[in-house]
Amino acid sequence: METELSRALGIEHAIFGFTPFPAVAAALTRAGCLGVLGAVRYTDPDDLRRDLDRMDRHTDGRPYGLDVVMPATRAAGMTEADAEAMIPEGHRKYVRDTLARHGVPELADGEPSGWRITGWLEEVARRQLDIAFDHPLALLANALGPPPDDVVARAHDHGVRVAALAGSARHARRHAETGIDIVVAQGYEAGGHTGEIASMVLTPEVVEAVAPLPVLAAGGIGSGEQIAAALALGAQGVWLGSLWLTTTEAELHSRALTAKLLAAGSGDTVRSRALTGKPARQLRTEWTDAWDAPESPGALPMPLQGLLVAEAVSRIQRYEVVPLLGTPVGQIVGRMTSERSVRAVVDDLTRGFERAVDRINRVAGRAER
Amino acid sequence: METELSRALGIEHAIFGFTPFPAVAAALTRAGCLGVLGAVRYTDPDDLRRDLDRMDRHTDGRPYGLDVVMPATRAAGMTEADAEAMIPEGHRKYVRDTLARHGVPELADGEPSGWRITGWLEEVARRQLDIAFDHPLALLANALGPPPDDVVARAHDHGVRVAALAGSARHARRHAETGIDIVVAQGYEAGGHTGEIASMVLTPEVVEAVAPLPVLAAGGIGSGEQIAAALALGAQGVWLGSLWLTTTEAELHSRALTAKLLAAGSGDTVRSRALTGKPARQLRTEWTDAWDAPESPGALPMPLQGLLVAEAVSRIQRYEVVPLLGTPVGQIVGRMTSERSVRAVVDDLTRGFERAVDRINRVAGRAER
Repeated sequence: METELSRALGIEHAIFGFTPFPAVAAALTRAGCLGVLGAVRYTDPDDLRRDLDRMDRHTDGRPYGLDVVMPATRAAGMTEADAEAMIPEGHRKYVRDTLARHGVPELADGEPSGWRITGWLEEVARRQLDIAFDHPLALLANALGPPPDDVVARAHDHGVRVAALAGSARHARRHAETGIDIVVAQGYEAGGHTGEIASMVLTPEVVEAVAPLPVLAAGGIGSGEQIAAALALGAQGVWLGSLWLTTTEAELHSRALTAKLLAAGSGDTVRSRALTGKPARQLRTEWTDAWDAPESPGALPMPLQGLLVAEAVSRIQRYEVVPLLGTPVGQIVGRMTSERSVRAVVDDLTRGFERAVDRINRVAGRAER
Repeated sequence: METELSRALGIEHAIFGFTPFPAVAAALTRAGCLGVLGAVRYTDPDDLRRDLDRMDRHTDGRPYGLDVVMPATRAAGMTEADAEAMIPEGHRKYVRDTLARHGVPELADGEPSGWRITGWLEEVARRQLDIAFDHPLALLANALGPPPDDVVARAHDHGVRVAALAGSARHARRHAETGIDIVVAQGYEAGGHTGEIASMVLTPEVVEAVAPLPVLAAGGIGSGEQIAAALALGAQGVWLGSLWLTTTEAELHSRALTAKLLAAGSGDTVRSRALTGKPARQLRTEWTDAWDAPESPGALPMPLQGLLVAEAVSRIQRYEVVPLLGTPVGQIVGRMTSERSVRAVVDDLTRGFERAVDRINRVAGRAER
């Protein structure tokens, strides 16, 4: 499946695969897609440099991308300590009580608190960019709208295309005005941060709003039939994230989480502020239920909520407290029922796409029935 | 656009148009679609008989359908008076106070209370069916799951196909077991009663769940590109309701409401229990906001909420109280920006479908670029 955009980027399939795992991103790129590595988990710049070096070695010179998280509204110069000081004690107590109720042990002294929220802060994202631009990136994506103007300019100086996620036509139009190159239309059904407009409605709205900029459809896509649907809606490609979480190359922090994903149906996700402070679709768990309960103090705004729950999330993962164990994932989780290699999944997508094209041609009377 | 189902029904386009207006339903059928008349507003059986007779005269012998509302769980023999008696006084007061706050006048003595909720009760639906089966129906649809077994049998005796709406694969599977002929997969973005799974995910799930039964995709469809997407997802046709509300043949109870629909964007709807007691997508108004407010007593279960608000809705409509004026409608409302005839809309759908097929063939490398 080839579009103007996929040809311009030199990829075989107009499939953009977002993943926090370098092995998955590299496998996606080798399979003819564009693997996009999520940078939010890299709090140590050296770790990011190491993994991008690894991407370079394992992608056979084919293009790949990086996804950073720079909030559109920025508290310039705010440090993690500044943010920590803004968290009310009542919220800290609610986290402690919820963990205690589920018997979640403390981390041992010196045990790293795993995933931290620091990647949300602009200073961290900027350090990541210094490293990223030393590598042959094809795409820089920002999960929270367009990056700052100087970052867009710097990307363009390096020949890197810039993509920004949008959950509404209004946001997409605003993004387009900043000089970015690609808009990712993120539908309600997507994993992670989403708005309320479903892909079926959002994709064509965004396509129309930002034309002639190319649009990638995100949300609800996990089969070749769904790719065909997204392209029929005017997208120049698709942006898939959830689907790779259960590939054999993915290394989730817990096998119990992989099992939960494989067992979950499309109705087992929830759009919740519990993880970051903004509505993000994720597995519904007793943790998200606790934040939706009547006694919940309510989630704090980004980035405070992420800082508030970072240690708790580490403990839940470290001790595999199954009822609380979750991850951002879209409604497409219902289709993720077996562990397969990235290559096998991509083959399945391209075959399903061809089947859907056959089908649509039959309906249109353009082929033998 | 022809599918096995559209051929079996003898319609030109695999487009099923649901509407409460006989003039719209007849125009849909004449335009080569299947017009489906919503029966819920007919509290007087004679009115339904008159309008079905009219359908017969204005459809040139082409097929049309009827949509009734029979709740899957039924309180056998419950009358409207029984239901009225179950409504708490606190809820009645909240309705009175909300109307008073907006200065909504009382109806004059003897002024009919317009749309009542009685159509939700099984006894009313059954009287409607007695009349319907005297007419040459091609399709009987039920908005709340499968109709009772004896109704399905009776429809089949009359050569009428039966369709049931479902918002999840689980419901669809249960419906299929009752012997119905068609499942309408109603996505989150649809107007009226909806679940939480978006069409992009729901359609293929339902197709797989009930195969080989044919599935119609509903929710988020208002263009030929969206029809192509739905058919790529495996649907045998599409079920469109919202789109016809702003056709020139539609007679909404108020021109102010038409103006609100034409002005609304895709983000201006809300899934609310305010109208019927079950979550139904509708225009977001100060009326739906009142039921979502912290001081709201919460919506009652169906059919009590509908009975509770019936007179209020009549008053809001009668006096065109614009901030409170609403209607069930899907996220596709953002695309409804001008009043056009049913025929013009259908022509637009079929042209858009052909464009989408061209496009998808280019992407698949099956046509000249």
